[in-house]
Amino acid sequence: MLHINDSRLLNTLDELSEIGATSQGGVTRLCLSDDEVEAKRYIIELMKRAGLEVHVDPVANVIGVLNSAAETKLVACGSHVDTVIDGGRYDGSYGVLAAIEALRSFKESEIKLGHPLAAIAFANEEGVRFPAMVGSKYATGLITLKDVFALRGTDGATFEEALTKSKLELESDSFLAKHIPGTYLELHIEQGPVLENEGKQIGIVENIVGTRQIEVGIHGSADHAGTTPMDARKDALLFASKIIQFVNKLSLELGKGSVGTIGFLEVTPNAPNVIPGEVRLIIDFRNSSANIIDLASSKLNEMVKDTANKDRVQISIRQRADLPPADMTDSIASLIQEITDDLGLTWRRMQSGAGHDAMIMRRIADTGMIFVPSKRGKSHSPMEETAGDDLIHGANVLANTLMKISK
Amino acid sequence: MLHINDSRLLNTLDELSEIGATSQGGVTRLCLSDDEVEAKRYIIELMKRAGLEVHVDPVANVIGVLNSAAETKLVACGSHVDTVIDGGRYDGSYGVLAAIEALRSFKESEIKLGHPLAAIAFANEEGVRFPAMVGSKYATGLITLKDVFALRGTDGATFEEALTKSKLELESDSFLAKHIPGTYLELHIEQGPVLENEGKQIGIVENIVGTRQIEVGIHGSADHAGTTPMDARKDALLFASKIIQFVNKLSLELGKGSVGTIGFLEVTPNAPNVIPGEVRLIIDFRNSSANIIDLASSKLNEMVKDTANKDRVQISIRQRADLPPADMTDSIASLIQEITDDLGLTWRRMQSGAGHDAMIMRRIADTGMIFVPSKRGKSHSPMEETAGDDLIHGANVLANTLMKISK
Repeated sequence: MLHINDSRLLNTLDELSEIGATSQGGVTRLCLSDDEVEAKRYIIELMKRAGLEVHVDPVANVIGVLNSAAETKLVACGSHVDTVIDGGRYDGSYGVLAAIEALRSFKESEIKLGHPLAAIAFANEEGVRFPAMVGSKYATGLITLKDVFALRGTDGATFEEALTKSKLELESDSFLAKHIPGTYLELHIEQGPVLENEGKQIGIVENIVGTRQIEVGIHGSADHAGTTPMDARKDALLFASKIIQFVNKLSLELGKGSVGTIGFLEVTPNAPNVIPGEVRLIIDFRNSSANIIDLASSKLNEMVKDTANKDRVQISIRQRADLPPADMTDSIASLIQEITDDLGLTWRRMQSGAGHDAMIMRRIADTGMIFVPSKRGKSHSPMEETAGDDLIHGANVLANTLMKISK
Repeated sequence: MLHINDSRLLNTLDELSEIGATSQGGVTRLCLSDDEVEAKRYIIELMKRAGLEVHVDPVANVIGVLNSAAETKLVACGSHVDTVIDGGRYDGSYGVLAAIEALRSFKESEIKLGHPLAAIAFANEEGVRFPAMVGSKYATGLITLKDVFALRGTDGATFEEALTKSKLELESDSFLAKHIPGTYLELHIEQGPVLENEGKQIGIVENIVGTRQIEVGIHGSADHAGTTPMDARKDALLFASKIIQFVNKLSLELGKGSVGTIGFLEVTPNAPNVIPGEVRLIIDFRNSSANIIDLASSKLNEMVKDTANKDRVQISIRQRADLPPADMTDSIASLIQEITDDLGLTWRRMQSGAGHDAMIMRRIADTGMIFVPSKRGKSHSPMEETAGDDLIHGANVLANTLMKISK
């Protein structure tokens, strides 16, 4: 079995986490911000040092290629280097750096490969500045270059303006459209507590759940908290509390890994002595079955419509995001499992509750995902943490799986 | 019966509402802001034009006195000219202007009075910049001058600093401590829908409800909305939804005019894909019985403590405000009712769900409150509105009641 260079991987993780470091101990690198561009330049240099042929495609996906002369199907792996605001040091970065380290180890060990290999840092995986997964969607043809350019970020700048400002040297063709990967592997931290709780070293992802976000506006009446009798109220927050409990109960009833969350809720005017006139909230439903997501949405719609009239509030509902679930490729999962066993590591099959570029790449390639444990399940937070040994185990599973596929 | 000068009253209401006017059609005059000081200067000039002897006491209560030579007990009336942010044009201002108009009418009609009379604009009735009812609390000895001076406003300045900046010429003695009122009357808009809904012209207040505000902090865990199973969550907003429903149910069960509101609720981090880690909310209980407020508070405490452990969240509770209820004086209410009948106006006895300086003045004086209808019950809002006829009716009830008491 191949072993990657442990200290080199951990060093590059340390170096990359200093770019965009926050006072909380986290990292902020929004897509095409100065810090994220600096992180991309760091990745480009690292790919060059690893002896890879570097391509930066028209949307700033960064691709480092090994064995490019081979005329067989491209074997790709990677993740992203953009982060959420005050996010962790491992989410995305770990998968990119381990991919580069794997290819660098192949080159140093002079391993004979039958396929070309690519390590990829996809553009804008996190949906913070621009809608999520822009880079992989462009690479797989789900969105045109024109549409990517026109996306407007939360700061008001378009994607095209942000690209121009970055001064990155972009190629005019899509490398991944010309060299369509036959396989895509992504190594990532779990971002949940399952592996840690069960004491497993490796997670083999069978599917990535779909996510549907629904925004509900509740319009009541902002009246005086002292002078308006209970039976004359149109309390938007009271109605919101019914939605919160309904979403919780529904998710528990649906079971099968269903989760439902109201993470965002805003009250207007939000004064202690005024009955809430308006509430805006966002519901996030996730499941590995598109049917169950549809069922949850329709039950929510039904509940809201049935109850709003009785509670004398007006309701507006709109779908905010919809990413369908994606099954990973069975044969890839079996291969990852075999390699994990060969390395003497413990594993479990699991689903991914978070979205990843792998769910987009699955549309064009055989795809697999490898998870390593997240301490206390923390992610999208400065408290994100994975033990060094676990990081090395995951990178070795990735490298050996890539090697087997590329033989 | 005496009739005040209708158009003069309505004109002064128009003029005063231009000071601090907002683009929404409302008024913003926080205590001792430039606009509120300008409003006080307007009131001082108006009192002088009305032939009143003007006193501005050490906390900037503005007092206009008629018939000051009489050695009998002072008969006082008034309200306030400070407002909430983007509040209405009538809340407070109406009571002050009608009081000045009543005294001006007595003087013009050369009515012989046995008592001295005072029209008062109390300082900082609204609890926006500084804690509520500073002016009446100082006038009644509930708070010392030293403690008023030390109060720190939401902008960071102390009350003393704000007074100095105002350049108002303040007297060094408390006029109302030297001339303790035997009676206090306050005319105010209802700020609720009861009079309009029942088609009554005048509300005779029997009691002012007490208000207790309780702040609850809920501390859960901000985890990933996709990767954290339902049974591993510590969702602060889910727990908040139980408090919201409990407060509603409890207020309905307690009956007897009980109201309970959660008007303020803040979620952290408030991101659609993160389980709420922290929620801070403020509960506002009101009732005319202190016992019922105590009962509501203790039932809330019990519920929160019993349930928090089961829901795996931590709770912090603190009392934010506590104004005990105040019964108005029976003989004054009977007199107001008699005068209202004599004027041929319709009336109902009622409680005030909002706090007023009258609940503080009740500690030292026989006290009564007169309400006029608020259209759609709106207040603390640019939509606050009362018909001109209703404003005039209320002012005539006030003037004739004052005249009867002061004979």
